Amino acid sequence: MSELIDGERLWGRLMAMAEIGATAAGGSNRQALSDDDQAGRDLFLGWVTAAGCTVDTDAVGNLFATRAGTDPDARPVVLGSHLDTQPTGGRFDGVYGVLGGLEVIESLNDRAVATKAPIRVAVWTNEEGSRFPVSMMGSAVWAGALDLEVARALTDVDGIAVGAELDRLGWAGALPFGHDLGAYLELHIEQGPVLEDSGSEIGIVTGVQGFRWMTLAVSGEPAHAGPTPMHLRRDPSRAVAEILTGLYEISDRYAPEARVTPAQFVSLPQSPNTVPAEIRFSIDFRNPDGELLDQMENRVRSLIASAAGANGCEFELRLDNVSPPVVFDAGCVAAVDTAAAESGLTSERMVSGAGHDACNVARHNPAAMIFIPCRDGISHNELESIEPEAAAAGVEVLYRSALSLANG
Amino acid sequence: MSELIDGERLWGRLMAMAEIGATAAGGSNRQALSDDDQAGRDLFLGWVTAAGCTVDTDAVGNLFATRAGTDPDARPVVLGSHLDTQPTGGRFDGVYGVLGGLEVIESLNDRAVATKAPIRVAVWTNEEGSRFPVSMMGSAVWAGALDLEVARALTDVDGIAVGAELDRLGWAGALPFGHDLGAYLELHIEQGPVLEDSGSEIGIVTGVQGFRWMTLAVSGEPAHAGPTPMHLRRDPSRAVAEILTGLYEISDRYAPEARVTPAQFVSLPQSPNTVPAEIRFSIDFRNPDGELLDQMENRVRSLIASAAGANGCEFELRLDNVSPPVVFDAGCVAAVDTAAAESGLTSERMVSGAGHDACNVARHNPAAMIFIPCRDGISHNELESIEPEAAAAGVEVLYRSALSLANG
Repeated sequence: MSELIDGERLWGRLMAMAEIGATAAGGSNRQALSDDDQAGRDLFLGWVTAAGCTVDTDAVGNLFATRAGTDPDARPVVLGSHLDTQPTGGRFDGVYGVLGGLEVIESLNDRAVATKAPIRVAVWTNEEGSRFPVSMMGSAVWAGALDLEVARALTDVDGIAVGAELDRLGWAGALPFGHDLGAYLELHIEQGPVLEDSGSEIGIVTGVQGFRWMTLAVSGEPAHAGPTPMHLRRDPSRAVAEILTGLYEISDRYAPEARVTPAQFVSLPQSPNTVPAEIRFSIDFRNPDGELLDQMENRVRSLIASAAGANGCEFELRLDNVSPPVVFDAGCVAAVDTAAAESGLTSERMVSGAGHDACNVARHNPAAMIFIPCRDGISHNELESIEPEAAAAGVEVLYRSALSLANG
Repeated sequence: MSELIDGERLWGRLMAMAEIGATAAGGSNRQALSDDDQAGRDLFLGWVTAAGCTVDTDAVGNLFATRAGTDPDARPVVLGSHLDTQPTGGRFDGVYGVLGGLEVIESLNDRAVATKAPIRVAVWTNEEGSRFPVSMMGSAVWAGALDLEVARALTDVDGIAVGAELDRLGWAGALPFGHDLGAYLELHIEQGPVLEDSGSEIGIVTGVQGFRWMTLAVSGEPAHAGPTPMHLRRDPSRAVAEILTGLYEISDRYAPEARVTPAQFVSLPQSPNTVPAEIRFSIDFRNPDGELLDQMENRVRSLIASAAGANGCEFELRLDNVSPPVVFDAGCVAAVDTAAAESGLTSERMVSGAGHDACNVARHNPAAMIFIPCRDGISHNELESIEPEAAAAGVEVLYRSALSLANG
């Protein structure tokens, strides 16, 4: 267990937070701007207030707890993530980054270490996007990527708006959306199997994959499965056979960073003895390099046109979602790298496959992320699991990184 | 137009029958054992009675109209099909074979031609299986392949039973299920695109494909499409890519007779950024040769096990339906072949992809089928279409075949 960090206090707080909105299967349900989300923040506020922090919120309810620095002109080093969860969420996604940040402040207090720049813990509003359907909402508004009024107008399934909940809970504060951070570090569980597979203790996250989501519909000529010879068919299944094979050739070509995920299959008609009229599925493809992502999209488009044409089929290809790659700040990444080495932990540089609030922060400020392994790569799931030692190790890296950035 | 056959009378009767249960889109809706099915039979009974036939029905309502032969010991030559239709059926599926058989009797009458064996037209009950969900029901009961009481107990969506309708309509007669036919010939539209594509006027049907229906479920590990590297996935989509490709390799290997039809695709969860937990689809595969059909099944099973295993996936494969191939009687096929040549029509030998009442008859009696082209291979559809000249040509082949078999 880390000597710099009080792993038991950290773990105890993680478990205490998990009790708020606790689910029978061992997870947490603290959806954004709910009473449970409020209760989670109240618990957090008690801890940060006791730790001597000042607290502010901005107009979209992002919460900032600040430990003062010695230099009144120094820009704050911000350590953040989120406290809201999926409806059947785990105990660590987001929460670990917030309570890890708090633990850095506690350790600084324990050792009476002053920092030149303030250390601030950020709790971003509605990162999950499960109740209100825009993920990373609070950090997007903060970064200017999403209009505040658009965010306030988002409604849940009961028609309740973000704005109404912000007003009801009193979360909308006066802090300006100032982009004057010294650095931003987000500590998070990996949500993937890479660290567990390689055995590394720390992931030094150099960026976030860009992704594109497409929906493909391939249509042919529905025909009786018996009397219609193979060579006279316009068979979407055969086109899809070629398209799927080609998609995995594309992922192999851009390995190991590329991801290609065909999903959401459905065909019409649902008859076993009719050549399908239409097959639909989605294609999610990712790459940390924007130019390679463009190349992948060109290959995907060309593959689909070729396979459909070769089988006498028509197709419709819709681009549903575009997210550009994020490259984190070299200085922040180097600080994390050094901190991991100083902590005596094994580490590897990696790219995040999932989006995080750090992506929004990185639009205007130097940022990076730190990953720790999570069991079986499982996340967004009540079975989400990490080891207490790994949790403390990650916070030690966060502590060392923050200290070097705050005094640098 | 054929000189042996009165093509205008034939076409007029086809159009008159189509008016019973006529649909707005130009098709017919005469579902089995309905009042419209009764009205169709009444129209037919008026014609056959006027043509001097005697009429009998058996216990499942199969109707037989007989023109006497000169030899009291000769077994009848039966020409048959069905008068019931799909709910949005066409004008020719089944009807053409029944009215073609009647037209053979009319032509014999016109020319005062006596035959040694009786000529009998069969109208099988509930061939379509759309109202009562067993297709070729009447001929199956007749052939002993389906128990009469099982057939009588079948119900439609309103809970009305076959037995109740047989009793209400007075269709259940006393004629025994005697399997003492000299020959059985079924004239039918092709319901596929082969004759239209090759330009042949007549299809000499040598048998019916055997088929097997399977349902496959391939399951892997649902995982986030971003953080999960390709090599750490257990991805059902990738297994399905290999399976689909392999299925078409199997159809190519057994070309041109084999058919392979993957259909009914669906996957879970319906999320674009999650590697699917499971993908399901159906596989219909066909071959006119039972041994080759066995080989195909072995290859399909081996392919699926191999592709699932190579991608770390599990699978469940269910055999839903087995229909053995039918090989028609060489003598009947030869009679059709000769008749087509004598009619001066281009012809080709072919295998039926769809099942017909002839399959049941062929269990105990010499049988064969005659196909004529239908536009775009469309059937079970109100757009079903044939040419009047082609209709008369098919009946001429039926006439010549029947005459040679009845006097042979």
